[in-house]
Amino acid sequence: MARNCLAVVLAAGEGTRMKSAKSKVLHSVGNLPMIAHVVGAAQAAKVDAVSLVVGRDADAVASAANTGLPISTHEQTERLGTAHAVLAAREAIERGFDDILVVFGDTPLITAETLRNARQSLDDGADVVVIGFRTENPHGYGRLIEEDGELVAIREHKDASEEERKITFCNGGMMAIAGNKALKLLDAVGNENAKGEYYLTDIVGLARENGGTVTAIEASAEEVLGVDTRAGLARVEALWQARKRHDLLMAGVTMRAPETVFLSHDTLIEADAVIEPNVVFGPGATVRSGATIHAFSHIEGATVERGCSVGPFARLRPGASLQAGAKVGNFCEVKNAEIGEGAKVNHLTYVGDAEIGAKANIGAGTITCNYDGFNKHRTTIGEGAFVGSNSSLVAPVTIGAQAYVASGSVITRDVPDEALAFGRAQQANKQGLGKKLRERLQADKERREKAGD
Amino acid sequence: MARNCLAVVLAAGEGTRMKSAKSKVLHSVGNLPMIAHVVGAAQAAKVDAVSLVVGRDADAVASAANTGLPISTHEQTERLGTAHAVLAAREAIERGFDDILVVFGDTPLITAETLRNARQSLDDGADVVVIGFRTENPHGYGRLIEEDGELVAIREHKDASEEERKITFCNGGMMAIAGNKALKLLDAVGNENAKGEYYLTDIVGLARENGGTVTAIEASAEEVLGVDTRAGLARVEALWQARKRHDLLMAGVTMRAPETVFLSHDTLIEADAVIEPNVVFGPGATVRSGATIHAFSHIEGATVERGCSVGPFARLRPGASLQAGAKVGNFCEVKNAEIGEGAKVNHLTYVGDAEIGAKANIGAGTITCNYDGFNKHRTTIGEGAFVGSNSSLVAPVTIGAQAYVASGSVITRDVPDEALAFGRAQQANKQGLGKKLRERLQADKERREKAGD
Amino acid sequence: MARNCLAVVLAAGEGTRMKSAKSKVLHSVGNLPMIAHVVGAAQAAKVDAVSLVVGRDADAVASAANTGLPISTHEQTERLGTAHAVLAAREAIERGFDDILVVFGDTPLITAETLRNARQSLDDGADVVVIGFRTENPHGYGRLIEEDGELVAIREHKDASEEERKITFCNGGMMAIAGNKALKLLDAVGNENAKGEYYLTDIVGLARENGGTVTAIEASAEEVLGVDTRAGLARVEALWQARKRHDLLMAGVTMRAPETVFLSHDTLIEADAVIEPNVVFGPGATVRSGATIHAFSHIEGATVERGCSVGPFARLRPGASLQAGAKVGNFCEVKNAEIGEGAKVNHLTYVGDAEIGAKANIGAGTITCNYDGFNKHRTTIGEGAFVGSNSSLVAPVTIGAQAYVASGSVITRDVPDEALAFGRAQQANKQGLGKKLRERLQADKERREKAGD
Repeated sequence: MARNCLAVVLAAGEGTRMKSAKSKVLHSVGNLPMIAHVVGAAQAAKVDAVSLVVGRDADAVASAANTGLPISTHEQTERLGTAHAVLAAREAIERGFDDILVVFGDTPLITAETLRNARQSLDDGADVVVIGFRTENPHGYGRLIEEDGELVAIREHKDASEEERKITFCNGGMMAIAGNKALKLLDAVGNENAKGEYYLTDIVGLARENGGTVTAIEASAEEVLGVDTRAGLARVEALWQARKRHDLLMAGVTMRAPETVFLSHDTLIEADAVIEPNVVFGPGATVRSGATIHAFSHIEGATVERGCSVGPFARLRPGASLQAGAKVGNFCEVKNAEIGEGAKVNHLTYVGDAEIGAKANIGAGTITCNYDGFNKHRTTIGEGAFVGSNSSLVAPVTIGAQAYVASGSVITRDVPDEALAFGRAQQANKQGLGKKLRERLQADKERREKAGD
Repeated sequence: MARNCLAVVLAAGEGTRMKSAKSKVLHSVGNLPMIAHVVGAAQAAKVDAVSLVVGRDADAVASAANTGLPISTHEQTERLGTAHAVLAAREAIERGFDDILVVFGDTPLITAETLRNARQSLDDGADVVVIGFRTENPHGYGRLIEEDGELVAIREHKDASEEERKITFCNGGMMAIAGNKALKLLDAVGNENAKGEYYLTDIVGLARENGGTVTAIEASAEEVLGVDTRAGLARVEALWQARKRHDLLMAGVTMRAPETVFLSHDTLIEADAVIEPNVVFGPGATVRSGATIHAFSHIEGATVERGCSVGPFARLRPGASLQAGAKVGNFCEVKNAEIGEGAKVNHLTYVGDAEIGAKANIGAGTITCNYDGFNKHRTTIGEGAFVGSNSSLVAPVTIGAQAYVASGSVITRDVPDEALAFGRAQQANKQGLGKKLRERLQADKERREKAGD
Repeated sequence: MARNCLAVVLAAGEGTRMKSAKSKVLHSVGNLPMIAHVVGAAQAAKVDAVSLVVGRDADAVASAANTGLPISTHEQTERLGTAHAVLAAREAIERGFDDILVVFGDTPLITAETLRNARQSLDDGADVVVIGFRTENPHGYGRLIEEDGELVAIREHKDASEEERKITFCNGGMMAIAGNKALKLLDAVGNENAKGEYYLTDIVGLARENGGTVTAIEASAEEVLGVDTRAGLARVEALWQARKRHDLLMAGVTMRAPETVFLSHDTLIEADAVIEPNVVFGPGATVRSGATIHAFSHIEGATVERGCSVGPFARLRPGASLQAGAKVGNFCEVKNAEIGEGAKVNHLTYVGDAEIGAKANIGAGTITCNYDGFNKHRTTIGEGAFVGSNSSLVAPVTIGAQAYVASGSVITRDVPDEALAFGRAQQANKQGLGKKLRERLQADKERREKAGD
């Protein structure tokens, strides 16, 4: 498409029903602010610039909407209706665009395909294109009245005739407007109505009065679903998750219970990976083919290569990088660390700010002591090293290749390659003293209980 | 309402389809026995006294139903129908009440609002008020036949005409009865029917025969849903959870996946708190505004103040109290312990019977050794203290303010303020011995394998 | 039934829409390959032998299908239609069976009851029995045209009249065929149709032309649901889970949120066990009456006896055996280990290759160091022993009955009965050094930050 395009994103709604300290459009779906979903769809529909019409939190909204496109921000100080809101971006519209898309910051499920279709209709000669949707229960919605392929009116429910009320094609609110007509149409909108507001929908009639063509295109009902409350936000999140899960399933990812897998906007999972029930993906996760993410895992900012096994009950935090065939098992946390090929971190371990060599084995209960209260330090573990269970590795420290750390050791100095390191006390058994200790503790207990302690 | 009221709660059903060792009404919804939900709704509808008609487990049922109202318990030894069951509470009814509410112990979703409406109808002059519900599939239910705003009959499905079967307003079973008529009506109920039972529904006809007024009020279908099986119990739990989740969402709590958050009857979450997917709240949990509960957390009997971060994979047990801005991270358990403002307990730690000062940092893998097999002891950690990773704090013990415990230490004695404490062995590296050990272990392995071990 | 029976299982579909490196029928439902579900249903319907018609992965499919019945495998090299596929098993059919069941390897929800019904119809005199299902939306399915209790035709949707399209009884694809007619009928199927394929459905007409009787029996829609994509697999898994959960609920198992409990094909849970939300059962799990599995638990190959408490956040791996009243608490992993009656493993512990005596108490953070990098060793803990928190038990090792291990110990040698064992360093406090250390670390930090590190 050779035409250029401006997307005007209306994001000034108060959102009072959200009962939130931040602007509605900053609330996230799939761990991405709603406004970014909308701008992302516009970007995928090849728009060239974005104008945000905002109320509060203007900077935060602009920042969240930043996907690399030129963005201008326009404050709407009064709330006088949708046409008035669009005109807050007058300056941008005046710069001259072939297509103007008017979209809402709180309808994050809008797709690029629908926006492309709307632009295509402009290219086909329409002055105004209304994005509609079909519903079994049109009660309350404005009906799209079509004749011979043209949209002749948007009839509000209360004004509709019996016959018109049977129409199930409804106004979704979003529009595309021919750039060379946009300002003229918008300026012509009046406010002689019950609420005294300037309605964007009025440009349908105005365009036709001026001899222009108006058409409607169809989006799915979920695409035009706006968020007004946190219940609505949760509903949109559910629809978004369902959409993303379905895409992954169809691409060859196994999910036994997809409804229990929570994805982020940028989650990347390859075919023939297996995701068990109850896995949460934060932003920035990549899982390669043939890897298995077991139940109850939480993965964010991490990469899991082919053939890896993660969980159950594993947490990969940002910077975790599991090389092919590595294993991270239950109650393990990995942060900012590379786990080498075939290395194993199987049980109750914290690996932070570390590099673990290929085939190394990290025993249960091992802790990399990476933080001294002020600074973070690195732990380096060589290939094939064996770290005995319940060891403390006090960073900065290096365990050499093929080195062997005895269980229960506190390691504060580097261990050379192939060395054996101990850092634990000698055991002493005191015959019969266990019994005596018990008797004393039991007596303590009885004394306390007597004292009503 | 100046009228006083007795709620008669029918809770004597055998519940054999539950296949349970305990009485049906003791099974819980939202971690509260069903009977307590029903009594709670009655209490919120301002009843003055409760009569429980019980079969087995009378004491346990009475105890579960105790919400502070005067309660009398009446054993129903024979099962001769609902009217007969209500008459088990004759003694209580005889004490004289303006209103008698007849409710069921196994319909925990009944709301106070419906019970208030029923009482209002008595106040408006009705002798009997039937609580009905509407359903698309009325097949099998008794239909409520109304004329001029009065209920003229409850028609059992099998006795209903074609025309009556189209009625979608059905009998929910619960009733309100004018107290001064109740015994007369109930005593007049006969058992000349196929099953030889005394049906409560018969008082509709009897009241009208005596010139009284009978009306029906509407409850939602879920309010009258009775539990007969554990599948039914699970369904009611799901409806209850959905109701409670919706209330929280509308009050401004963010839940990305509310369907994965399990709440208890007394869970308290403030607006602008964030609850991630897969969080379970046991009884007694409070989460303040601005706190985040990350995925896979389990919270019971605990308080989480503003700006705290909990989880993922955290467990707060009874007596856990997180002051503002405190953090409890993955694979951490906190029990009967206060975590001071801004203090951090981030990884694989057990904090039990403890007090942790503001801004203290507890390293990964730290264990408060609070139990000696007989007695529980307290650990006190001062403000700004740093406890190195994998330390064992053997209670009773105090770590002073700004003190520093080296990683991997076993601390058995108090550490003064600003002191540095060590309790770990010296490390020794044995050059080349790692290699030798490996060779020996490898040889062991081969020998075993040869031996078919 | 005295008749013998061969089940021909069609499992040669390419399954390209699965986008999988392995054969479609090897994908699992309830942790059992689909093919094993189908063969299992056939086995429960008392078939005597199974013939698998396979494409790729023949050995793996045969192995997965092995439930103890005699199995023959037949490779289908060309894909020329369902009748052609069945004839791949000609050799087996020729051996002579009273009944031939033709089932699909990718419809794992088929029940034994339906297959028994189909066989019964053969016994009642039918030559061919078609397994149908009813659906509100029959569009696209072949309709089953019946007259006087006989099936007279299967009409493809596109060939159906308006009147026939109203029929909601549809062809599910699976069939039973009288063994003595089977080959004659199958050989008579031609391929003069648009696709040039040999359709199994043609034997309906052929049987009738030969004067035989054809009937249809009804299965539920889910029984005939075939899997083509991973989305379809997930849907079948959901239906299977719902079925299994319902069975458990009706048998008296409490599940607050059954939709969050994931079961395996062989999961065994007794009445009056309680399963909290978010529990995953891998294969081989048994939970006895009166046990509670708390939220976020993962149980596989393990037995949990009466009155045990598991979780939240517990993992029982294969070989875990919890005796009556034992407790395994949060962030604990148990593998190949017996936990004695009333023993407690409550917090952040790894127990592997071990035996723990009755009433023993294993402190928080205890690790059995069972692996030396080459060999696994056993830990034995006597009755009533107390293992202090954060201890490392270096196997092979035995802790005697009533012995007492001090917190934070590394135990490398056996501890006699009733002895007290220490294996930890002396603590040293350095007055004021904590403060000095902080100052130094703080200075380090500032230096780094200055250096832009």
